Amino acid sequence: VTGLESMFTADAVDACLDDRAYLQAMLDTEAALARACARAGLIPAEHAEVIVARCRAEHVDAASLGFRAIAHATPVVPLVQDLRAAVPEPVRPSVHKGATSQDIIDTALCLIANAATERILATLTSAAAALATLAQRHAGDVQIGRTLMQQAEPTTFGLVCAGWMTGVAEARDGLVRARAGLAVQLGGPVGTRAAFGEHGTAIAADMAEQLGLASPVLPWHADRQRIGALMASAALAAGALATIGRNVALLAQTEIGEVAEGEPGGSSAMPHKLNPARSVLVAAAAQQVPALAASVLTGMAGEAQRGIGGWQAEAPAVRQALRLVGGAAEHTLVLLDGLRVDTDRMRANVANRPPDAPPVTGDALAAARTLVDRALEGR
Amino acid sequence: VTGLESMFTADAVDACLDDRAYLQAMLDTEAALARACARAGLIPAEHAEVIVARCRAEHVDAASLGFRAIAHATPVVPLVQDLRAAVPEPVRPSVHKGATSQDIIDTALCLIANAATERILATLTSAAAALATLAQRHAGDVQIGRTLMQQAEPTTFGLVCAGWMTGVAEARDGLVRARAGLAVQLGGPVGTRAAFGEHGTAIAADMAEQLGLASPVLPWHADRQRIGALMASAALAAGALATIGRNVALLAQTEIGEVAEGEPGGSSAMPHKLNPARSVLVAAAAQQVPALAASVLTGMAGEAQRGIGGWQAEAPAVRQALRLVGGAAEHTLVLLDGLRVDTDRMRANVANRPPDAPPVTGDALAAARTLVDRALEGR
Amino acid sequence: VTGLESMFTADAVDACLDDRAYLQAMLDTEAALARACARAGLIPAEHAEVIVARCRAEHVDAASLGFRAIAHATPVVPLVQDLRAAVPEPVRPSVHKGATSQDIIDTALCLIANAATERILATLTSAAAALATLAQRHAGDVQIGRTLMQQAEPTTFGLVCAGWMTGVAEARDGLVRARAGLAVQLGGPVGTRAAFGEHGTAIAADMAEQLGLASPVLPWHADRQRIGALMASAALAAGALATIGRNVALLAQTEIGEVAEGEPGGSSAMPHKLNPARSVLVAAAAQQVPALAASVLTGMAGEAQRGIGGWQAEAPAVRQALRLVGGAAEHTLVLLDGLRVDTDRMRANVANRPPDAPPVTGDALAAARTLVDRALEGR
Amino acid sequence: VTGLESMFTADAVDACLDDRAYLQAMLDTEAALARACARAGLIPAEHAEVIVARCRAEHVDAASLGFRAIAHATPVVPLVQDLRAAVPEPVRPSVHKGATSQDIIDTALCLIANAATERILATLTSAAAALATLAQRHAGDVQIGRTLMQQAEPTTFGLVCAGWMTGVAEARDGLVRARAGLAVQLGGPVGTRAAFGEHGTAIAADMAEQLGLASPVLPWHADRQRIGALMASAALAAGALATIGRNVALLAQTEIGEVAEGEPGGSSAMPHKLNPARSVLVAAAAQQVPALAASVLTGMAGEAQRGIGGWQAEAPAVRQALRLVGGAAEHTLVLLDGLRVDTDRMRANVANRPPDAPPVTGDALAAARTLVDRALEGR
Repeated sequence: VTGLESMFTADAVDACLDDRAYLQAMLDTEAALARACARAGLIPAEHAEVIVARCRAEHVDAASLGFRAIAHATPVVPLVQDLRAAVPEPVRPSVHKGATSQDIIDTALCLIANAATERILATLTSAAAALATLAQRHAGDVQIGRTLMQQAEPTTFGLVCAGWMTGVAEARDGLVRARAGLAVQLGGPVGTRAAFGEHGTAIAADMAEQLGLASPVLPWHADRQRIGALMASAALAAGALATIGRNVALLAQTEIGEVAEGEPGGSSAMPHKLNPARSVLVAAAAQQVPALAASVLTGMAGEAQRGIGGWQAEAPAVRQALRLVGGAAEHTLVLLDGLRVDTDRMRANVANRPPDAPPVTGDALAAARTLVDRALEGR
Repeated sequence: VTGLESMFTADAVDACLDDRAYLQAMLDTEAALARACARAGLIPAEHAEVIVARCRAEHVDAASLGFRAIAHATPVVPLVQDLRAAVPEPVRPSVHKGATSQDIIDTALCLIANAATERILATLTSAAAALATLAQRHAGDVQIGRTLMQQAEPTTFGLVCAGWMTGVAEARDGLVRARAGLAVQLGGPVGTRAAFGEHGTAIAADMAEQLGLASPVLPWHADRQRIGALMASAALAAGALATIGRNVALLAQTEIGEVAEGEPGGSSAMPHKLNPARSVLVAAAAQQVPALAASVLTGMAGEAQRGIGGWQAEAPAVRQALRLVGGAAEHTLVLLDGLRVDTDRMRANVANRPPDAPPVTGDALAAARTLVDRALEGR
Repeated sequence: VTGLESMFTADAVDACLDDRAYLQAMLDTEAALARACARAGLIPAEHAEVIVARCRAEHVDAASLGFRAIAHATPVVPLVQDLRAAVPEPVRPSVHKGATSQDIIDTALCLIANAATERILATLTSAAAALATLAQRHAGDVQIGRTLMQQAEPTTFGLVCAGWMTGVAEARDGLVRARAGLAVQLGGPVGTRAAFGEHGTAIAADMAEQLGLASPVLPWHADRQRIGALMASAALAAGALATIGRNVALLAQTEIGEVAEGEPGGSSAMPHKLNPARSVLVAAAAQQVPALAASVLTGMAGEAQRGIGGWQAEAPAVRQALRLVGGAAEHTLVLLDGLRVDTDRMRANVANRPPDAPPVTGDALAAARTLVDRALEGR
Repeated sequence: VTGLESMFTADAVDACLDDRAYLQAMLDTEAALARACARAGLIPAEHAEVIVARCRAEHVDAASLGFRAIAHATPVVPLVQDLRAAVPEPVRPSVHKGATSQDIIDTALCLIANAATERILATLTSAAAALATLAQRHAGDVQIGRTLMQQAEPTTFGLVCAGWMTGVAEARDGLVRARAGLAVQLGGPVGTRAAFGEHGTAIAADMAEQLGLASPVLPWHADRQRIGALMASAALAAGALATIGRNVALLAQTEIGEVAEGEPGGSSAMPHKLNPARSVLVAAAAQQVPALAASVLTGMAGEAQRGIGGWQAEAPAVRQALRLVGGAAEHTLVLLDGLRVDTDRMRANVANRPPDAPPVTGDALAAARTLVDRALEGR
């Protein structure tokens, strides 16, 4: 993502998901298929070598593919045409051997999702570590707890950070599980692997090994559980990150002033303002993800061996959701790394409570510390 | 659910989720809290006995609670008032000891979700078994595969059923994982467990043990990952079931006629029609679930220690989503148990393919059988 | 809605949408059809009289209908069976003359939506009037404007209320337009009105006149624009109301304290707290509506003359969305009628701005007053 | 949109929505503001001329803006910095006079939405005309109606097309209404128009006149009804188009064969197949829109004078939704223009009905023709 919407996303994750990466993933799938077919004796080894050598994205024009894709509702048809045209005539039948276009699209989508989630997971891990540090540092720093937006009883900022940490860690674990489900797709036209004879299972496994993806029990053209689970885990991660973004903005309210961003944003109209810019970006990026997930979850019930509309709409949603989670994660990490915590103001807000509020006792702080310790041990 | 919308749901699951069950779950939570507090020495054992004896839903008027809930945005305030009023004066401070209303709501929601998912899982297991039987029985029965709604190449109906089975099994596994995350909530007003002193962890663990729920690392008032994950898994299950419902209806089309429901529905206007009524109910019930999930996923980023609007909107969505998944699962099971498979028509549809379609070879059937065997072994 | 979720809804709107009302609406549709058919000479006038006399919900058991509906995926089949059984044998062919079950369901859904939206519109009108009063009363009361949750420049609380009023008025206008699209459905089995010969248009118009609904150009079994538009307008109304609910809660924060609810809610754990209970209920009810709208909008593309799953899933979503908008509107009205505005605190919050904030000038207040006047004139 | 996802969208609509267009719309807003301020005597006329001359997108680097936007959560801050830097020092205070960044973003979003919807409306009008032609041409061509995917009673293909036409026309009318709500945003930092003194209303009206947008009663920073309504109308349009796409694919099924696309797509694996590629693209594009609408509808309740996350997430959703509706409309038009209708096959499918189906009578055809005539007259 370049340009005006790039503020919602993170370059390193975007790069895993852009057209060049997606196209290369399709070509990597074709290359892995050729290698596996050669090893199974279904095509000559020299054919595989020729094919593999051509499977480089710089040889392909994505814009042209997009245009030519319209006639077939998939870019794989023109991509395979181009690949075949680029190899010597005898090699052509060995290109895309036994596969269907959805085999390539699905595998490629899993490949780029695999790469993107790897980076997202790293950022989530760093964010969780930053939160652990904050939790420990502020384990004894009293803060007034607020429920239904009213001051309630005291807690500590360390416990608040521990709660954010737990949310991020749970979301990360969910994403790890969903990522483990990303799999090679190899079914051929109707999911039987008919063209591979007795070698179907071995070829799929070989491709999975090459590509670093799972080898599924069955082709999954018509079973979209793994894509749906990926999107659900993306939405859950967005929820964990949005919790942090929204709450930093709430605590940074002028009247509360307990935290501030390290490098607050400016205003085009009011030079004195210190806007919680990263928090806003986290919230805005995360806001968009659940709907993208719902779009995929709603479209899971495809027609027969390969449906009309549902699965084709997945790739845009998956790519955009992962970009947005990537951006939300990156901004959260920057936000946490630079977070300014005003423990004096926290204490002052506790001291200024309404006269009928109960007194602060050591019990609450001790209990909060126990919980922080427990959360940090559980990491 | 009684009345006009009960056709979308299943009685046994509904019963786990209705107002009486939900209210009893709240009371079970209060009872478990009282027992645990007594064991920790925080309240007298006799108090706990008195409280436990009163925690029966038949003592409470749900309709009145609903009305009195408005003033507090939660039914727990009037419920606790009623409980206190119903016990001798000295026992009153021991009621709802150290808890906040969200502790009761969240734990009760997990309790009814736990019961409902147990039944849903049983139905999904039966549905997967029915699909395994169909997969085995029809492993050699040729059927034309259809992609983008066009006849493509041959497969077997057994492989189709194996694919449905795999989808159901994956959804079931996801629901099992989400169910394992259903946890006791015990945080007190701001999530510190302050009122329990050093006993907080033990009391939460005791309650979890009593109630058959997980004991969380931290109170999770503001970390809604486990509820979001439950809803995501419900949406994935809906997707797996809708795949079956829609595809049975597609295969039952008059012009295709390869399957029919065991007891097709009638029409109010056309006596000759055989409507795929169960398929329609599965599709209609499942259709509603992803949006309910999105609603919860969108509301995860609550404000401070207890937010305004997000988490309060969860219980209706969770209850309705589980009802609908329960209904979709039940109807799917009935559908599968009664499914009439017309293998003659399947063969005829293969034979009647366009003249330029490639011939059917034994390869496809052998490959399909290999996959069916693999899927059945993997159960 | 009775019981534990009734706090999200309003009794008067619920009563328009409950099973009894829905069932009566189905029967009203059958009665209107009978009358219209008699006037067109298609059935004897005495038959119509007999039928009309039986079309009373108290004669029907909704729970039993729900159960018997399963076999047909619609309650209309058993409903018509019961109606026929309840009239003398010669009258039976005149019952449900020329109609299909979806004719009854769709018309009945429009009827209950028509009644419910009438009440919702009345509440929205009252809420807009309450906001107009607040806008006028506080047109000169300075308040600090807050952007990205940071104090920015001064405005007036009157202008804030004028903005809420405009939002409610726009939402109301949208709901009025969507309501005008609620129409009689009369198509017969496949939407041709074949059974009515040359009288089809007249019978549909007669029914529309009787029932207070629009008479559509064509039967709309497969064109769900009007239901989608209704749901969209419900979601927009939810957005306008949620804006008020959330912002009242924000302004009621302990540290801001510029408004308070007239009868704030209590806490089960913290007697000193004054919870913005109505605001929370508004936000929680409104939160659930956009997803219900998305569910309907996603299911609009039905199959052929009557689809599988999409339209059948509409009624639950429509009923629940209108209930929730009704509840959000009712709670908003109560909230506004009782709203306590602390103009001293507003002034104090302006006075306490950061030292580098620009001074408050009369320009802002004059400009704000101009806008308030403009908004009030535009009513 | 270029590249791999461009198959879902249409170039002409994309061009209205891309970064260059969006940036130019922001600059057009700044230019219109400068002209209006000059006419009101708030800035010198020469300043306005200088500013207007600089407001050309080719002077700005969108990629750099995107990066610099991060620190402020909006690209308008660096854009205004660049504009100011590009004009002589004395002119600088006249740049962005009295405005806030959301004024620019909101107005620019309305401008590009206005341009995009103009083109979409033209395509919808053409599609409705194509459907009118089909409705007239096939008014007498019998086709079997199908309900719940079962053959039911006869209708005509003309009536089917008339129903699709009506849906498109309703959606178009809704989009026209939503488009009329697209408005200039001018409020300044907190929505008071304080910097414009008595000229606020006149300046906003002048800008609206220049830009071809509505002049709102009040600034609408915190009232997102018009954006929500735009998204709802986009989702409704998607629903009308998806109905056509899905149903063409259903009627094109090999076993039904009543229609075919003019230029069916190929398969990468099965040369004999004729894929309904345009139908699939329509369905896939439309599938993504309701969720985008829900995302905006869910985020409408912003905080105070300018919120955190909700409105910032609108622009990506609006742009993508309009692109997708544009693509769905374009593909639908191509689909309809080339549609091959096999009336022989339609007749044959009627003739081959089950033996217990009622006979086809002239009544149905006459009734269908009456409806078609009515729908065509109503255009």
